[in-house]
Amino acid sequence: MVSKITILRAVVAGLTYLLALLTKVVGSQKGGPHQQKSAEEESEKEANERFGLSWRVAVEANNVCPWRTVPPRCYQHLQNYMCSGQYERDLNLVVENILIYASQIPLSSDGMDAWILDVDDTCISNVSYYKNKRFGCDPFDSTIFKAWIMKGTCPANPAVKLLFNSLKERGFKLFLLTGRDQATLSTITSNNLHSQGFAGYQRLILRSAEYKGQSAVKYKSAIRKEIEREGYRIWGNVGDQWSDLQGECLGKRTFKLPNPMYFIS
Amino acid sequence: MVSKITILRAVVAGLTYLLALLTKVVGSQKGGPHQQKSAEEESEKEANERFGLSWRVAVEANNVCPWRTVPPRCYQHLQNYMCSGQYERDLNLVVENILIYASQIPLSSDGMDAWILDVDDTCISNVSYYKNKRFGCDPFDSTIFKAWIMKGTCPANPAVKLLFNSLKERGFKLFLLTGRDQATLSTITSNNLHSQGFAGYQRLILRSAEYKGQSAVKYKSAIRKEIEREGYRIWGNVGDQWSDLQGECLGKRTFKLPNPMYFIS
Repeated sequence: MVSKITILRAVVAGLTYLLALLTKVVGSQKGGPHQQKSAEEESEKEANERFGLSWRVAVEANNVCPWRTVPPRCYQHLQNYMCSGQYERDLNLVVENILIYASQIPLSSDGMDAWILDVDDTCISNVSYYKNKRFGCDPFDSTIFKAWIMKGTCPANPAVKLLFNSLKERGFKLFLLTGRDQATLSTITSNNLHSQGFAGYQRLILRSAEYKGQSAVKYKSAIRKEIEREGYRIWGNVGDQWSDLQGECLGKRTFKLPNPMYFIS
Repeated sequence: MVSKITILRAVVAGLTYLLALLTKVVGSQKGGPHQQKSAEEESEKEANERFGLSWRVAVEANNVCPWRTVPPRCYQHLQNYMCSGQYERDLNLVVENILIYASQIPLSSDGMDAWILDVDDTCISNVSYYKNKRFGCDPFDSTIFKAWIMKGTCPANPAVKLLFNSLKERGFKLFLLTGRDQATLSTITSNNLHSQGFAGYQRLILRSAEYKGQSAVKYKSAIRKEIEREGYRIWGNVGDQWSDLQGECLGKRTFKLPNPMYFIS
């Protein structure tokens, strides 16, 4: 026969266990004093998140003075941004707006309605390289970057591929304009673009010797001027850098694709 | 003497209560099946949050085609953005960058170094009005807006007031350029600015009869052209609308302050 004391002991042990469990669950929910350090970490993490968000918006609106690396405290925010799907969502929304604008353009039958698209982080993506550079928090390494480019495996940005094909079908002549070096990167770039489904464009223009050392704004302005001189009407100009969208002969409308990882002047 | 059965009943009742409490706490934490509807609501809320964020970034980068009202699903995001401190954080970061740029400008002693600042939602804030218009999700109401303006109580944007004073102290001539109607709003605007601490500027320019009906881009370009014709060098141009920062005689550098609530073409 079980004694009353044994029963009471079992009851007390059971109640104690359940109370401990309850305390633990409530504690993890509300944050007890034993979690003070992690609360501080949490608060720093949240402050960095808020700063990262401000910084990214300022970059996209071209409000940040020329910068070489992303502020280290933005790392977590950028990692989340680039890898959680929000970067793709942002790209999709911009492309949606470009297509609305493009659908309202009255095309001529002379075949001279043109569109400019940048290549890196516009048509094809270097996010794989930048992932290893902490999304731009670590300095740019031209040797490693060139090795990445020479693999010829930059994947398409799906939203921009859709844009490319829609504009082509609509009848625009597409000019792909890149700061990549013509002498060394012409073949690999052309092959990479084709393997990723970018075909049927009017011209792929890389930086030839005469533009070496020039800023992107100056070089790209000169090329756009030449395209207009040939008689083309530039209706749109799309790039991930503000230097794609500044200077002369910009086109009737420019669109800035998101890129918080690097800055080209 | 208490019987074993009575003790056991009490124990079972106690354990049942504690288990129910534990289930409730864990359920509210992880979301049990009884909370399916609220999980769906949560998921829709999160999707709207992500969309609102994409939309706001696209607006700030000038990627959104001309719009009359904010998409309704952005309401919660904009309310959080405007009221949680993130809007002010964004303003502060832009102003920090403007001050870095301004500090590097070599001022001349001829007193002709100029700066352009917009008024509404740049120097002084209309967030009080837009709060009642669901931060731009509800259509603009010119009667109510005019009544708000006529009170002359638009508060200063603290970050821009700091910018204003820093630029003035540095020796820039400040031109406040607004689309507000000169005939009806000149006195109230000037008084509102003064009461909020904006004093010592070079000129406050409102829209006179000859510019009535013109787009902001055209009107503001004409005024800036006139300022340059007088011999001023426009180093910077700050506004919350892209139409403040487009057109001619833009100044050497433009800065876009955040404003996801309305669009002026």
